[in-house]
Amino acid sequence: MPETHYGLDPGAILEDPSDLAKYETGWRYGAGKAAAVARPSTTEEVSCFLRHCFEHGIRVMPQGANTGLVGASTPDGSGSMVVLSLERLNRRLEINATDRTARVDGGVLLSRLNEALAEQGLLFPVDLGADPMIGAMVATNTGGTRLLRYGDVRRNLLGAEVVLADGTVLDGLTALRKNNTGLDAKQLFTGTTGVFGVVTGAVLQVVPVPKQRVTAFVGVNDGEAVLALLSALEHVVSELLSAFEVISAGALEPVFRHQTRLRNPFGSGALPSFGVLVELSTTLPSERLDLADLLEATLGTHVESEAGAGVTDVLLGRPEDLWEIRHHVSESLRGEGKVLGLDISVPRSALPAFRESIRAWLENEHPFVRLCDFGHWGDGGVHLNLVWDEALAPAAELVPRLQDRVYDLAVGRFQGSYSAEHGVGPHNQRFFDRFTDPSIKGLGALLKGHLDPKGLLGTTRLW
Amino acid sequence: MPETHYGLDPGAILEDPSDLAKYETGWRYGAGKAAAVARPSTTEEVSCFLRHCFEHGIRVMPQGANTGLVGASTPDGSGSMVVLSLERLNRRLEINATDRTARVDGGVLLSRLNEALAEQGLLFPVDLGADPMIGAMVATNTGGTRLLRYGDVRRNLLGAEVVLADGTVLDGLTALRKNNTGLDAKQLFTGTTGVFGVVTGAVLQVVPVPKQRVTAFVGVNDGEAVLALLSALEHVVSELLSAFEVISAGALEPVFRHQTRLRNPFGSGALPSFGVLVELSTTLPSERLDLADLLEATLGTHVESEAGAGVTDVLLGRPEDLWEIRHHVSESLRGEGKVLGLDISVPRSALPAFRESIRAWLENEHPFVRLCDFGHWGDGGVHLNLVWDEALAPAAELVPRLQDRVYDLAVGRFQGSYSAEHGVGPHNQRFFDRFTDPSIKGLGALLKGHLDPKGLLGTTRLW
Repeated sequence: MPETHYGLDPGAILEDPSDLAKYETGWRYGAGKAAAVARPSTTEEVSCFLRHCFEHGIRVMPQGANTGLVGASTPDGSGSMVVLSLERLNRRLEINATDRTARVDGGVLLSRLNEALAEQGLLFPVDLGADPMIGAMVATNTGGTRLLRYGDVRRNLLGAEVVLADGTVLDGLTALRKNNTGLDAKQLFTGTTGVFGVVTGAVLQVVPVPKQRVTAFVGVNDGEAVLALLSALEHVVSELLSAFEVISAGALEPVFRHQTRLRNPFGSGALPSFGVLVELSTTLPSERLDLADLLEATLGTHVESEAGAGVTDVLLGRPEDLWEIRHHVSESLRGEGKVLGLDISVPRSALPAFRESIRAWLENEHPFVRLCDFGHWGDGGVHLNLVWDEALAPAAELVPRLQDRVYDLAVGRFQGSYSAEHGVGPHNQRFFDRFTDPSIKGLGALLKGHLDPKGLLGTTRLW
Repeated sequence: MPETHYGLDPGAILEDPSDLAKYETGWRYGAGKAAAVARPSTTEEVSCFLRHCFEHGIRVMPQGANTGLVGASTPDGSGSMVVLSLERLNRRLEINATDRTARVDGGVLLSRLNEALAEQGLLFPVDLGADPMIGAMVATNTGGTRLLRYGDVRRNLLGAEVVLADGTVLDGLTALRKNNTGLDAKQLFTGTTGVFGVVTGAVLQVVPVPKQRVTAFVGVNDGEAVLALLSALEHVVSELLSAFEVISAGALEPVFRHQTRLRNPFGSGALPSFGVLVELSTTLPSERLDLADLLEATLGTHVESEAGAGVTDVLLGRPEDLWEIRHHVSESLRGEGKVLGLDISVPRSALPAFRESIRAWLENEHPFVRLCDFGHWGDGGVHLNLVWDEALAPAAELVPRLQDRVYDLAVGRFQGSYSAEHGVGPHNQRFFDRFTDPSIKGLGALLKGHLDPKGLLGTTRLW
């Protein structure tokens, strides 16, 4: 019988501290200390590894590309957890064009999936700034910039394969769109950060690549006018609308200061209160539907209507250029000082009032803190970035006060969420603890006790 | 203290046998005997009623419009269950046009919701033959004819309010599109037929009413050619495709025999093997996009291509006329003899092979049984209707043999489902028992024990 280590071929285990570093620290957040890293390449190996850990009471941190934003994929500081990296679990990548499905291993990168799909004119449309692995996208229930059109991972997930803490494999790799046979067990593992089981495979529904994609940047002078624009677009170009991203002046201005090669499309004068990035896309060819003309005409009609009174500018531009502005917001803000990014959602009709309540509170209580928000208004999501000079207030002191107040407002007064799309992890655990209904915590404890009775998987407490 | 009965005002309770009859028998399937019917009008009353039943160990059957197709909404034959009818729980119906949401009580009828939405140019797009109540639609996870475009109830459900067996109210009536904060508890109550809790309210995402809707009936001579047509449409008119319904000749022919006022659009000659009802819809006005012309041109291009070789006829028609044919299939089949309707799905690429395996088996084993299938091929769904003269074989003897063989083929060989959209109830309980993975049954038992520890709700066993 060959020698094994952690239930695997010794070659699948890393233990040298220099090899461990990249698994111990997240892309942006999270840092800890691992005892080792296991890199199985098949579901069976994941099962062997977890069974070994279960028998020996070894705690495990499942990890994809480690790009999460709540610290849920890095080991804790104990040095006793073993990282279960999905990076070599990437052999299966089967596309069925007739079914419009892709069946993939949990360690396949989103970029690799989309390269393979593109060869058949297909796309997995959950679009975001990082390049995560599919299993971790399921565990995070990733959202992104085109959720308005295509939904989150949950909505595009047809089947999932999960390995439980004791090594049991739940094979739910169905490609069915309709399967109404009681409890949909994959929902338990979607968005629960791997603490109930490790997502080792998925069957995803995919879509045809659009043949046309056009964008406009619309200047709007107040929040209610942004919502009026959204409603107007949804009633006319409903099924073609693929993004509605709103960048406040506070978030736009640093982009043009720090990214000198990016042109400010509004010109060198004052920025509008909000820049709205509107994207339409379609599989129809331009001979049939001139999408650029449609967008221009729809925006033109809106501007001339009473509801369009708040629109200050309508700029049509190349999608690459406009998206580049959007994608450089976070980076540019970091050049301005300390950035506290809060991933919030509220019912979208409440966005202007929520935002105004934050602005007024900051003005009174923390006048040196700038509100530099942007986000997915079409989905009620807003990345509420608060930026300040750390010389004026150290982060350790100010961050908890800002978080507490903003989340209390978002959740308590506006029926919103303290985590719109990033999920729950050590970085926002205390807000899960504060805002979650005891009955839901009870369900979390019930499921954890059943699925991972020794409490070995992950660090997030969903109970 | 006022007198109460079952925890409610006595006026909310029916006990006269003549009043009970309509709650004891389903619209098409299911019949039993009730001790009484409770008709609470608020969530608080549902809670009082269930708390009373919990304390006294009284079994309860939650019931909406009683239009389900698996017998999961009628009491059993014991005469000891109390029906909890949602019919008076219909006061809340709040539409927020900016949010594109409707917040409704569980007893609101789908038709009433859509009437209210229509006043604001909105629509709840889960479309089906019956007129169910929203709470029961959640409990059933209703699918329907436009799932290809809009998804099932699960995909359109933003929040749910649930009352547990002991009267605890889980208030999850959020209007958030993004809320990634751990376990999404509403998923446990979606599609689980009320046995984990009673869905008393929902927040639904709704869509703008399309301004154009066009249909064509396409004759196709084999199953692979039907799939080629589907792929061709998805790559060109992807986001506009709102239905792709396929009716086999065996199901079409009885329609024109029994519905003499319906014209056979293929003329009086031989029917094609399949009639495909293709529907496009859009919020764009016809000045911008001529949808009828687009459909005709797209089908024309396909017919001229190599992939379109199997198309025999392309008929453009008024949507009402073509949908009327589709909606009269079930009724017409009942005029032909005994009908066994099986609600199946397989990966859509497998539909032709699955169907052929059934056809060949019938020809060999039960040549007098006709295959009269139709269904939602775009979603891999097929209503596999088997029709025969009961004089040749009594249903009691033949039905179990047909069910066993068809389901074994669908699930075992084609990785399909024995219940694509109707859910699980007494009518297909034994197939749940046969085909469900023991781990999933274990989760069902765990949840039932926690959420309904005395086992009082419903008759379906999801464990």
